[in-house]
Amino acid sequence: MELLFLGTGAGVPAKHRNVTSIALKLLDERNAVWLFDCGEGTQQQILHTSVRPRKIEKIFITHLHGDHIFGLPGLIGSRSFQGGTEKLDIYGPKGLKDFILTSLKVSGTHLKYKLQIHEISEEGIVFEDATFKVEMKKLDHRIECFGYRITEADHQGELNVAKLQEENVPSGPLYGRIKNGEVVTLADGRTLDGKDYIGEAKKGRIVTILGDTRRHPNSVALAIDADVLVHESTFTAHEGKLAKEYYHSTSVHAAETAKEAGAKKLLLTHISARYLGKEAKQLETEARAYFPNAQLVKDFDEITIPFDHQ
Amino acid sequence: MELLFLGTGAGVPAKHRNVTSIALKLLDERNAVWLFDCGEGTQQQILHTSVRPRKIEKIFITHLHGDHIFGLPGLIGSRSFQGGTEKLDIYGPKGLKDFILTSLKVSGTHLKYKLQIHEISEEGIVFEDATFKVEMKKLDHRIECFGYRITEADHQGELNVAKLQEENVPSGPLYGRIKNGEVVTLADGRTLDGKDYIGEAKKGRIVTILGDTRRHPNSVALAIDADVLVHESTFTAHEGKLAKEYYHSTSVHAAETAKEAGAKKLLLTHISARYLGKEAKQLETEARAYFPNAQLVKDFDEITIPFDHQ
Repeated sequence: MELLFLGTGAGVPAKHRNVTSIALKLLDERNAVWLFDCGEGTQQQILHTSVRPRKIEKIFITHLHGDHIFGLPGLIGSRSFQGGTEKLDIYGPKGLKDFILTSLKVSGTHLKYKLQIHEISEEGIVFEDATFKVEMKKLDHRIECFGYRITEADHQGELNVAKLQEENVPSGPLYGRIKNGEVVTLADGRTLDGKDYIGEAKKGRIVTILGDTRRHPNSVALAIDADVLVHESTFTAHEGKLAKEYYHSTSVHAAETAKEAGAKKLLLTHISARYLGKEAKQLETEARAYFPNAQLVKDFDEITIPFDHQ
Repeated sequence: MELLFLGTGAGVPAKHRNVTSIALKLLDERNAVWLFDCGEGTQQQILHTSVRPRKIEKIFITHLHGDHIFGLPGLIGSRSFQGGTEKLDIYGPKGLKDFILTSLKVSGTHLKYKLQIHEISEEGIVFEDATFKVEMKKLDHRIECFGYRITEADHQGELNVAKLQEENVPSGPLYGRIKNGEVVTLADGRTLDGKDYIGEAKKGRIVTILGDTRRHPNSVALAIDADVLVHESTFTAHEGKLAKEYYHSTSVHAAETAKEAGAKKLLLTHISARYLGKEAKQLETEARAYFPNAQLVKDFDEITIPFDHQ
């Protein structure tokens, strides 16, 4: 599980920061990639990575500002052109369907796969299967804007087959019961406790990705105990007034949210083109004063999200 | 007057060829830039050039396929964000208004300038003022597709003020009459023929930019005596069947059109990502066998269009 930042800029593209898109790579977990937002040029950014458009299974949109959605029509079309045949699900606020369907219709784009657009308006679970759950809560931006919390199901401990073989436990259906942690009696009379033959369970990881927002309690709620919180940082610590006026956050707002939520790591993105090099690094420094494990990301940064070994 | 190629690829963006957009730089002529087509990522390409979005006065769209229009919403929005206040005119086929207005509405994009979208359906003069005329004819593509012929007004010869002063002709309203080529009598009795005091007139230049198309007589009509013809070359000389099937041209179709029209220069663009380096150069070689002054363009090529001194 990795987060790959395809665009880390704010509002308009800059030479070294494209507009927003984040790939959550779930190749080991489900042989798929999920995108969060899809600003103009996302498909061009993808060309410089190992991501294959046909592997993109779901796209979650935080809000409908152009720098978060204008790359959708092109990516949707190219995914078909480049051989994508699997269904694509796109989630986001009301209006998304109008934008996508109008773009495809006007341009005469015909897809070779099923496209399902989910316009969501209610907070809560947006998607859930055996391995992942995605929840949405609303944030505080100029237009309706969502934050997403992605929770991986816990990984059951793996059966220690080597130990069973060492102890001459014959393989067969019994292994399934042992893996379930049951106490079983063997044909030779031995009694085994399944729990002794199961490796350590791994707690599922939690990734929180927020759209553009002012400081808001829902941000904290979405990020509780998150392994990684991705938070916008459009303004510096000293620009709280501007941040409020433009419905954005400062570096310190992001850090306070991460701290309050007990998140393990904070990634700062949505960086204004006004901040280059050292000035951008200053945002990171400001955040670290409140939350030490903060990192400013740039385009093409890839962050591995490890299991928490407690 | 220069043609700056912002995207020279076909269908989907490739690493080194973005989707179609061509800037006609008219900075000396009218302190403006005109765009022809605006594929996704055009505003990002512009960042690597000297073009200022606020100087873009007109955008002409050849057809509504995604690789020719999906960059419009972003560029329109950024032009406002970056201080553009002058009116922007966009010309193209029916459906353009629906695409642009839906994109702006859904994304909550508010412009600080007047945007006028001209949906055109009739062949003929699309725009004309004292210095430029733009004519449109329909081509042969899978969907309605236009070619544009841009004709610059002839430049009147300049008044040779140095010669008049040398001959002690007093300045004043008389100079205007001399500039008009009239025969005038001076106060001292001398008679001058205005024609002797006017420099060489310059014939206005003609630039023809075609959208995607099969070989078609209208392409020739638009390119008659053109200083430059920009023509797609999606397929090689040997792929005539594919070109026909996909409503495109081969390198030779482009060359034949240039030759038949008596154009002075042919620029080949809309190059498939299948052709890299040498293979792309092959398209140029094929075209040159029929029309020697052919050139394959790549992203960021800038071609100056000189006056024809005959």
